[in-house]
Amino acid sequence: MTIPKDPGFTQRLEGWQVRIEAELAARLPAADTHPTRLHEALRYSVLNGGKRIRPALVYATAQALGLTESHVDGAACAIEFIHAYSLVHDDLPAMDNDDLRRGRPTCHKAFDEATAILVGDSLQVLAFQVLASGHGLPGDPAIRLKLVDVLAECSGTAGMAGGQAIDLAAQGQSLTAAAVEEMHARKTGALIRASVLMPAYCVPNLSSDIEQALDRYSRDIGLAFQIQDDLLDVEGDSKLLGKATGADQANHKPTYPSAIGVEPARQRMHELHATALEALDVLGPAAASLASLSDWLVLRRH
Amino acid sequence: MTIPKDPGFTQRLEGWQVRIEAELAARLPAADTHPTRLHEALRYSVLNGGKRIRPALVYATAQALGLTESHVDGAACAIEFIHAYSLVHDDLPAMDNDDLRRGRPTCHKAFDEATAILVGDSLQVLAFQVLASGHGLPGDPAIRLKLVDVLAECSGTAGMAGGQAIDLAAQGQSLTAAAVEEMHARKTGALIRASVLMPAYCVPNLSSDIEQALDRYSRDIGLAFQIQDDLLDVEGDSKLLGKATGADQANHKPTYPSAIGVEPARQRMHELHATALEALDVLGPAAASLASLSDWLVLRRH
Repeated sequence: MTIPKDPGFTQRLEGWQVRIEAELAARLPAADTHPTRLHEALRYSVLNGGKRIRPALVYATAQALGLTESHVDGAACAIEFIHAYSLVHDDLPAMDNDDLRRGRPTCHKAFDEATAILVGDSLQVLAFQVLASGHGLPGDPAIRLKLVDVLAECSGTAGMAGGQAIDLAAQGQSLTAAAVEEMHARKTGALIRASVLMPAYCVPNLSSDIEQALDRYSRDIGLAFQIQDDLLDVEGDSKLLGKATGADQANHKPTYPSAIGVEPARQRMHELHATALEALDVLGPAAASLASLSDWLVLRRH
Repeated sequence: MTIPKDPGFTQRLEGWQVRIEAELAARLPAADTHPTRLHEALRYSVLNGGKRIRPALVYATAQALGLTESHVDGAACAIEFIHAYSLVHDDLPAMDNDDLRRGRPTCHKAFDEATAILVGDSLQVLAFQVLASGHGLPGDPAIRLKLVDVLAECSGTAGMAGGQAIDLAAQGQSLTAAAVEEMHARKTGALIRASVLMPAYCVPNLSSDIEQALDRYSRDIGLAFQIQDDLLDVEGDSKLLGKATGADQANHKPTYPSAIGVEPARQRMHELHATALEALDVLGPAAASLASLSDWLVLRRH
């Protein structure tokens, strides 16, 4: 069986993007409250026209499981705050030293380095505060505590922060495909996985079949997404991307294409896309948006 | 009434310091697990002979409320991880640019700036992970979620991170005593307050009298502690302190003594110490260690 795609996916995605923008804006401190410069920098770094891939995954997974958006708004915001903090810190001079992000000056360029460090720190804490506050989340404290646990696991040294450390250590090194895969699984894969697991944990007594299927989907789509990112850096259109291409090679970063070649990397990406779609079978037609979302992630040009 | 002091306080404090050291060590990732350099830097930055003031406050408050240490070990670790992350990030060149911390090279000097940024990020997430995991904490998920909420509130832009932003913005400025107080209340006071409130929230149905008394104690002792810190920077012994004195003045940082003078600052500190002790009356003799602890904080020479 193959899950049919969602014919109205484009509109649905736009609706989610509008929704998450309002949710994020409402949960960020107001720019006119003290300390204003830090709060302005927080809002600048989050409300910047991102694609909101991770919130879209949260909403699409919720839909597949019969939850409404208002059950998972908090989870969607928490993950996007973690993602936004990681971009602000990764862009710092001591890390990737990027001046542009989505065509605008990065936080430390628009403000200053000290502010950018504090913006990342504050966004991280805001993510956990959102989960504790409970707005737009299930009322059961045990569920919300489980969300704190998953988000922490996926963003700490076993997840995203560990992936960034491996990435920095690997610059100028030649890694095997397996080592690149481990780096990607932590650095970007872990948060993609959290975006699917958090709404799943909002369902009391979810069957282990469905949990395992969503875990498979999230792991495969996370790696496929990152391989596409690597491929776009080699072959993409810098205007569409809003950032320079060839940066990975210039920074001597190990990537999937550099480990096994461009065509084999593309083939691996399509295989992962196919296994991710297969994993959705157990969910039936309710997973149509998740299926469409994986197409969007893997086949995107920017 | 005045709460009698704890005649065995010195030994009790040493016992808590030994206990928290073992608790922290057990909860940090092992240095031989991947990514090893990041994990080494995490352990270097936490297991460094700190005085463990905040965990001592957690344990002393727990004792005053009839809880055992094993009810609050997790809270003590979470607060110390947040404190340790803030020191690592505050020491960065873009922030306070300190080379030494407790007589040893700061994290970015011993390792590198990128690693120090990731150490802070990873310690923050570890703090919330500890609260979610539940080891050394009450089993009730609602209580642990409340601890996540308090810790987030006290470490975000309304607390510690906001205080650091105000501090950075204030360099070279001349602030009023009220403005210095607000900066201190956020930058160091908020986490001192969390150290007292978190064990209080571990008691189901705590009376609002006792909660208010502990809140008063924590606010007064937090500000008194910071005034003493400012005074030691002016008058302290750099050998005892393990860091250079006169740094606040050299960095043009507003301090309590610079706002109102050394002697009035010392007088204010002693007044706060007295009101903190008065607030403990409602707890009776069980608060003997909290009373002794406030002496230790305010009368310390380093």
